[in-house]
This record gives sequence, structure tokens and C-alpha cells, in this order.
Amino acid sequence: MSELLSNIISMIRPLDEEAMAQARARQDTLTKPQGSLGRLEELSIQLAGIQGRPLPQIKHKAIITMAGDHGVVAEGVSAYPQEVTPQMVANFLRGGAGINVIARQVGIRVIVVDMGVAADLEPTPQLLSRKIAPGTQNMASGPAMTGEQAIKAVEAGIEVVQSEITRGLDIVGTGDMGIGNTTASSAICAVMTGKTAAEAAGRGTGIGNKQLKHKIEVISQALAINRPDPGQPVEVLARVGGFEIGGLVGVMLGAAAHRIPVVIDGFISGSAALIATAMSPELKDFLIAAHLSAEAGHRLLLEHLRLQPLLDLGMRLGEGTGAALGISLAETAARILSEMSTFTEAGVSERS
Amino acid sequence: MSELLSNIISMIRPLDEEAMAQARARQDTLTKPQGSLGRLEELSIQLAGIQGRPLPQIKHKAIITMAGDHGVVAEGVSAYPQEVTPQMVANFLRGGAGINVIARQVGIRVIVVDMGVAADLEPTPQLLSRKIAPGTQNMASGPAMTGEQAIKAVEAGIEVVQSEITRGLDIVGTGDMGIGNTTASSAICAVMTGKTAAEAAGRGTGIGNKQLKHKIEVISQALAINRPDPGQPVEVLARVGGFEIGGLVGVMLGAAAHRIPVVIDGFISGSAALIATAMSPELKDFLIAAHLSAEAGHRLLLEHLRLQPLLDLGMRLGEGTGAALGISLAETAARILSEMSTFTEAGVSERS
Repeated sequence: MSELLSNIISMIRPLDEEAMAQARARQDTLTKPQGSLGRLEELSIQLAGIQGRPLPQIKHKAIITMAGDHGVVAEGVSAYPQEVTPQMVANFLRGGAGINVIARQVGIRVIVVDMGVAADLEPTPQLLSRKIAPGTQNMASGPAMTGEQAIKAVEAGIEVVQSEITRGLDIVGTGDMGIGNTTASSAICAVMTGKTAAEAAGRGTGIGNKQLKHKIEVISQALAINRPDPGQPVEVLARVGGFEIGGLVGVMLGAAAHRIPVVIDGFISGSAALIATAMSPELKDFLIAAHLSAEAGHRLLLEHLRLQPLLDLGMRLGEGTGAALGISLAETAARILSEMSTFTEAGVSERS
Repeated sequence: MSELLSNIISMIRPLDEEAMAQARARQDTLTKPQGSLGRLEELSIQLAGIQGRPLPQIKHKAIITMAGDHGVVAEGVSAYPQEVTPQMVANFLRGGAGINVIARQVGIRVIVVDMGVAADLEPTPQLLSRKIAPGTQNMASGPAMTGEQAIKAVEAGIEVVQSEITRGLDIVGTGDMGIGNTTASSAICAVMTGKTAAEAAGRGTGIGNKQLKHKIEVISQALAINRPDPGQPVEVLARVGGFEIGGLVGVMLGAAAHRIPVVIDGFISGSAALIATAMSPELKDFLIAAHLSAEAGHRLLLEHLRLQPLLDLGMRLGEGTGAALGISLAETAARILSEMSTFTEAGVSERS
């Protein structure tokens, strides 16, 4: 493991218990029956513990959407051709994708990162280029990337989130784009949770039964050839992962090291979280699961992480769309804690 | 039934199938796998059908929070004293309550209406006074109100929402405040769903086991004395309802008559929806259930209405807090449909 990586991991400390105790105490003085805002109250307390202050603030919000291509698409695992990855990156930059629409509503800036798209993308001020390689190798016949590339991808993610922190960042959401990346994520999910390829795989962008069966076979083959060891998370990333997944691992670690809450999106972000929490178990407390994706393996993955999703809307788009909705709820939770009047301030009688 | 009421009910027409078909067709051309935004897609289609246009717009948003007191509090059914109702109304007007915080975030105006608070409230430009009486009678010993008062309450709700429509209104959420109103709502829920008082009752603001047992007995007594007939919904409202519940019935009917989507909050709004949909079965399609409340009877009630809640965050505050979050999701749904690029516009390849 590199020095940057070891340093970042050593910076991830437990939540601030004192700030959480103060946040909890304040929740119980606000003008509402105790506990009546349910998970929003718990979330506000978690945010206090992460940010290390009794009144957490959610003002500067970003989604980091990382894009990468996957050699395994050669096996015919996706409903869409690989060219859709760069086309969707262009769509993000023009503001026409789902993530752009939700981010505009919620007031979130979207950072698009080319982690390894298999096309030459013109660099623009809105598109960060951290391309490790033009797509991974086909994991069905060997490792998706080298161990060095895996570390480089994670480091790139750390650097991207650190640069966002200098621009002002109170919360970050993770997003992804990459044709074939549910196949890589299913492989990671199977390894890290100990489930079978069939349990971890789903329909991705919408494949039929026959193609799903084939996808499961491809994942099984990738696992058989690469034999990834769940005790070596960076190796798992290298053998059956993806560049955008590695980047998201770095975003999570880097954010937590700087006490920034991380709202994870769906299945791809979840597979990155499996890798990242294996590298740093303390990271888990910094993660907020935005939603339960309709992608089949996502439930397994969240159960393994012991994260309870905030939303269950049958979404499975990725890009950070679920994370953006989760950030909106996190902002609600923080505002409730800061802005609601106490019983004393409002002159409201307490329980008789 | 009054002429206003009959007219309003006759104005509630089925959803616009043509607008829905166009919205559905457009969803399938947007740059995402078909169906991948799950319930947000369904919601956008419902909004199209309600508003009668293929691209529904959610710009002008209001929560109507209706307050009223309940004679049944004399039986000791609540954890809080009755004076909390006017105190919380004052808190709404100062902007310190939960609903104010969420409404500010989402950009929703909050209309507070005194439908029957048992205290003299100074009228202000922000507080509409539609007081039917200073609190209902104790339903444990007779009807909560007269049939005339029930109709007056519903009519007041219709007038309030109509006046908001003239100010500009694309969506409305319902909210409530009234110490004792989960007791009235449980009685309505039991009558309209055919369940027992024990099944329909919950802990409201947070009563213990002993007080819950007592609350169930009080509800049973109110039902035994008043013998409300589920076939006569206005009579149910009169016998075991509340002024704010009647007002919310009117808001729902009035909004639907003018093709405005109604986001219903939790248990109190749900009991109003039981009355309102019994008066106009067509109304159901205009309702959006924001969330599943932690109040025990809410699930029964939503199942009876065949409404699937958008959120499940363990909330049970009322005021319209759940509805405000639901309005935010409805806005997301409408924006997705209007603002996302199509495959053709974005030059993205379709399924291979």
C-alpha cells in the first residue's frame, strides 16, 4: 500500500461522541415529540459525529461521478454498447442527464471524472481527467488491472475529493457511469460478502433472462480465473474491479479522513464501499446509504455493510441520482437540528 | 350535502389518459435505461394525468396546515396538554416548527389555518381564521360536532385551497396540528376500514402502554355511543372527527376539482383521505402518499386506500412534514420528465 493511502487510512478516526451526545440532547429539546422525526433525527446525530460539531452544516454539496470502461463487455454482459459511456459523460457535461436534473434541484455541484473511459475525451474545465487506462482488461480471462493501477485509481479518488474540500465541501455523494460496471460490482459483491455470482448479479441496465444467465457465467469465470481474496481488498479491486470503482474507494477514504459525510449511491458505489470498508473498518460510520437499488445484489451488499438505506424508490440508474436525493435528506436532517425552536424558545408546554 | 360540496365533487374527473400516455412515452426516450428511475417515473406520469399536461410543472408549492382541538382530550388520551395546540400554531407563525424548516428548504409556502383551536388566536396575515368552534365536543359522550359544522369545515377547506389556487398552486400538501387528533383519526380509521379500535390506535405523541390501553377504550366507547356508518362519510366526520380533519377533507376535494395533485402527510391526513375518498372515489387518483408514518394505524389506512407511500423514515410528527418531503420528490419527478435529454437530443446510442 502506498504512503498516501496508509496516511489517509490512519486519518480516519471514530465519530465524535461528544458532538453526538450534544446533538442527541438538542433533538430532545426541539418542539416535537421526542423521536418523532425518526431517521432524520438519527441522521442528524451521525452528521454531528462525522463533522465533529453539535450543529452539523450541509451547505456545500457535491456529487463526484466517476466514469470508466470495462473489458468484460467483450463477453456481451450489457444491454448497451460501450460507446454509451463517453456519450453519457458528454451528456453529464451538457447537463442533460438524470444526475444533472436532481443536482440542480437540490443545489449540488456535479464533478465528472474520467477514470478510464475507453475513448479520448476532450478535457474541459468541468471534466477532470484521471484516466488510468482506456478501460480495464477483460476480467473473464485475467485481472482487470494491475495492482499498481488499482492503487493509482484509489489515490486519484483521494486527490479529487481533497481538491473539492478546498473548494468547500460539507457532504459528498458518489456516482458512477460505465457500461459493464454492474458485472464488475457483482464480482466484488460476491467476493466480499461470500455469496455466489448468481446471488450477486442482477439485470444492470435491463438484460433479459438469457443474458443474465450468461452474465452470471462470466462472473463465475472471472472469479475462478482471478481467485480474489476478500482479505486483500486492493487485490480484489485489481482483479475484478474497475477504474471508476477504485476512484470511488478513494473518494470515500479521502472524505472520511477529512470528516466529510459520504452518501453512497447504489450498487456500484456499494461495491466500492465493500472494498473501502475492508481497507478501513472505521470508514463505515461515515457512510450514509441513500437508497435501496432495484439491482438484485444491492440488498446483500447493504446487509453486509449493515447500512439501512433512506429511500426505496425502485431506482437503478446510478450516476449518483440516489445519492443526490440522500444528500437532500441529510440537509433536511441538519437543518431540523439547527433551525427548529426548542420548547423553551417557543414557549411550548412539554409533556404533562 | 351542500351545493358547494356537490359541485366540487362533480368537478373531480378521471385522470387525463392522453397526457399520461405522452408522459409515459417521453420517459422511455430519456437518456436512462427504461424504468430505471422507478417510482419517480410512475409519479411523473400520475402528475401528468392530474395536471392534464404531458410535462407537469411543480413550481408553486404549498402546505396547508390545519389546526383544531378535540373535546376528547378530557379523557386523558394525549401525552401533551391542550394548550400545546395554540402554542404550536404560534410556533408555525414564527417559523420555528419542523414544517417551517423543511418548507424553507424545499421552497414551499406554509398556510396555517385555525379550524377550531380552543383558544383565541390573534388573526395575522399568515394565520387564516376559519374557526368552526373552539374545539370539538367530547366524542366519548356524544358527537364531536353537528352535521352542519362538519359540512362547514369541509367547505372552509375547499375555500382555503381555492384561494391558494388563485395565488398560483401546482401541488398542495396537507398538514395538521391538534392535541388529541390521533384519537379522532383512529376512530375514523376503525370505522372506514372496518378494523377494531385496538388495530387503528397508536401512541400518538408518545403515550405509554397503560395510556394506550385507555385510549383504545375511549375510542371504543366513542364508536359505541356514536355508531358512525361508513356509508355516510360526512356523518362519520361529524360524530368522531375533528374540525382540522374536515378542513383537510375540503382541501383534498377542492384541489382535485381543480386538478392539483395532493400530497397527503401521515395518519391525520390519511383519516381525512378516508372520508374524502368515500365522498368521491375519483379523488384517489389525485392523492400521493408521502410517507409511512410510525403511527400504528397508518399502514392499515394506506392499504385500504391502496396508496403506496414514497418514504418510510419512521416519522410521526404531522404538521405536513412528511408531505413536504413528498412534494420535493414530486418536484424531482416532474423535473426529470421535463429537463432530461432524450437519446436523440444527447446523441446517446440506444440498446444494442
